[in-house]
Amino acid sequence: MNDEQQIRELIAKWLRLSAEGDISQILPLMTEDVVFLVAGQPPMRGREAFAASFAGWQGKFRLETDGEVQEIQTSGDFAYSWTRLSVTMTPVDGGPANRRSGNTLTVLRKNADGAWQIFRDANLLAEK
Amino acid sequence: MNDEQQIRELIAKWLRLSAEGDISQILPLMTEDVVFLVAGQPPMRGREAFAASFAGWQGKFRLETDGEVQEIQTSGDFAYSWTRLSVTMTPVDGGPANRRSGNTLTVLRKNADGAWQIFRDANLLAEK
Repeated sequence: MNDEQQIRELIAKWLRLSAEGDISQILPLMTEDVVFLVAGQPPMRGREAFAASFAGWQGKFRLETDGEVQEIQTSGDFAYSWTRLSVTMTPVDGGPANRRSGNTLTVLRKNADGAWQIFRDANLLAEK
Repeated sequence: MNDEQQIRELIAKWLRLSAEGDISQILPLMTEDVVFLVAGQPPMRGREAFAASFAGWQGKFRLETDGEVQEIQTSGDFAYSWTRLSVTMTPVDGGPANRRSGNTLTVLRKNADGAWQIFRDANLLAEK
């Protein structure tokens, strides 16, 4: 696979594993020092913070995602992706689903093993 | 100036010119095919769309900005920047000011003349 194919595979895997709730396989897809940016909240820094956030909703919500990559470009060990994303979180004990959609802009880095990892992520999803 | 210094200068210039309302000097700071991403709106594509948006509020609001670069990294002709930004838009004919703050994640490209330009921008500012 070339770099773009590897990144497409990474994004597809990320979405699939998020829906399946498999945090142990999700964490290696991001760097240790990853930063997630969302509106109205402070930056979420590091794998540990991501894992804690994930554990907070895991088991309480069923997640469905639909992602469509708009663009991937690479330069050396650096890449970015722009993805159009829809996320539906449905409480497992009933209640209305929360639907969000919008764009993500992600910076990726290729690690020493040649694998791409999520490094900086801006999540612009808004409620529908 | 090295690449990081050039990009810092670009961001400072962008904010200064935006406050001054000088669109003719702002447009060369972005690529022709620039894309601006914000939550809850479709992507804004291209210099022309930016100029039209700018003209829509120019003269009606006084803009004040305060930007603090969190991170800049470059790889070849690609770079990204993460900036913490506050923007206040005050109606010139009175009325309450709109204050927004948050993070921006920006992908930049170095053009054939060696100048860095804004290429993809995710704006995560939210109302205070």
